[in-house]
Amino acid sequence: MRVLLTVAYDGTDYCGWQVQPNGITIEEVLNTNLVRLFHEDIKVIGASRTDSGVHALGNVAVFDTNSRMPAEKIAYALNVSLPEDIKIQKSMEVKKDFHPRHGVSRKTYEYRIRNTSFPMPINRFYEHFIYVPLNVEAMNRAASFFIGLHDFKSFCSIHTGALTTVRTIFSCSVQKDEEDGVIRIQICGNGFLYNMVRIIAGTLIEIGKGLYEPERIIEILNGKDREQAGPTAPAKGLTLMKIEYEGIE
Amino acid sequence: MRVLLTVAYDGTDYCGWQVQPNGITIEEVLNTNLVRLFHEDIKVIGASRTDSGVHALGNVAVFDTNSRMPAEKIAYALNVSLPEDIKIQKSMEVKKDFHPRHGVSRKTYEYRIRNTSFPMPINRFYEHFIYVPLNVEAMNRAASFFIGLHDFKSFCSIHTGALTTVRTIFSCSVQKDEEDGVIRIQICGNGFLYNMVRIIAGTLIEIGKGLYEPERIIEILNGKDREQAGPTAPAKGLTLMKIEYEGIE
Repeated sequence: MRVLLTVAYDGTDYCGWQVQPNGITIEEVLNTNLVRLFHEDIKVIGASRTDSGVHALGNVAVFDTNSRMPAEKIAYALNVSLPEDIKIQKSMEVKKDFHPRHGVSRKTYEYRIRNTSFPMPINRFYEHFIYVPLNVEAMNRAASFFIGLHDFKSFCSIHTGALTTVRTIFSCSVQKDEEDGVIRIQICGNGFLYNMVRIIAGTLIEIGKGLYEPERIIEILNGKDREQAGPTAPAKGLTLMKIEYEGIE
Repeated sequence: MRVLLTVAYDGTDYCGWQVQPNGITIEEVLNTNLVRLFHEDIKVIGASRTDSGVHALGNVAVFDTNSRMPAEKIAYALNVSLPEDIKIQKSMEVKKDFHPRHGVSRKTYEYRIRNTSFPMPINRFYEHFIYVPLNVEAMNRAASFFIGLHDFKSFCSIHTGALTTVRTIFSCSVQKDEEDGVIRIQICGNGFLYNMVRIIAGTLIEIGKGLYEPERIIEILNGKDREQAGPTAPAKGLTLMKIEYEGIE
């Protein structure tokens, strides 16, 4: 059977999702633990190959197994041996031809910025700290220009392997929690290019600092040139919140 | 002058607040950094001697210095050398006779419980994980019995040095965020005994599990016996939110 795993992790101590020679990755830890559990040669296929330091509440991976363990129980069995910073949130059987990078209907990311005078130790691994007061209203107005179908070539790292840089954004908003001073950029779309959310966050931060007007986003999109957008914001502020598929609850 | 510091820390890697021979403490790190900054023999006096693993957004400490650095600037100067897991949130001059353990008008603590089927890597150092579904309504009703002036002898570790075990609780409530599954016990009072919030949390958890009725709190308070209350809940779920003083903003 093919099993879908909803995977949560604290990306702080990992070299991202994808197996690579220079350090330990989420994918590698999952593979090792699945092989140990089922005594089969298992390799997961991931939905989002998140960067080093990026977190997830709900990344998705699938794998095939001959095991007869009920699919829902696999989360429990796997969590026993997984480290504290990677835990399965759900496991379920899916159709044999289900592929986690096809048929995605919505992906939701959150980028968190602690915008206070001083850094806050609690949550420091999950927030990007900026002491310059940011104009949240301007950031939120700028965010609205990302909504819809656009060519995001300007918001994509040069080394992308994507066939097309056109994506649809369903929602994008910026809100500040006045109590703790945390600004949250929430973005939901049908797919994201390499580094796209971090470049969007970096650009919104520049607008929040007043370096340019919210309307500049329209020009940057039209320019189709990475040089026109802001810098790539640090990985630790980014969390992949969830991935939704058509026909899967 | 006497300077008041509002201190935030992630208590995970510290043996609590108070200087002790077996490991590094928050107090010790503050002293070392103040001595280095002012070249004077400085020792802070803390308001709350939090336990090993307990966090703070706003613990308070004072110290005396002959320095002429404007008191408000000390937070900036000190944060340059402090580690990432201890950061000053505010510094201000107070009267020469101000003592952080006298004249406290309100202390607020929060105890966080992640009550979901599986542990969540993000925030794992700041939440106590319980997979058994807790009855939040019962916990909140039980919490209401702590409000007012009571003898908290049953909710205090035996080895207390306190002269009286009578304290006033201004508010105590239990709420669950249905989106992330986190239960927050918030408690505000004029003072707390050794381990008092963690024993209250441990007792509320037992009520949440249905081990006894909310009204049992009244009996436990009247019993004045530590044995009658629940276990001391783990330190990592506890955060000292703020300490308020009369006449200080």
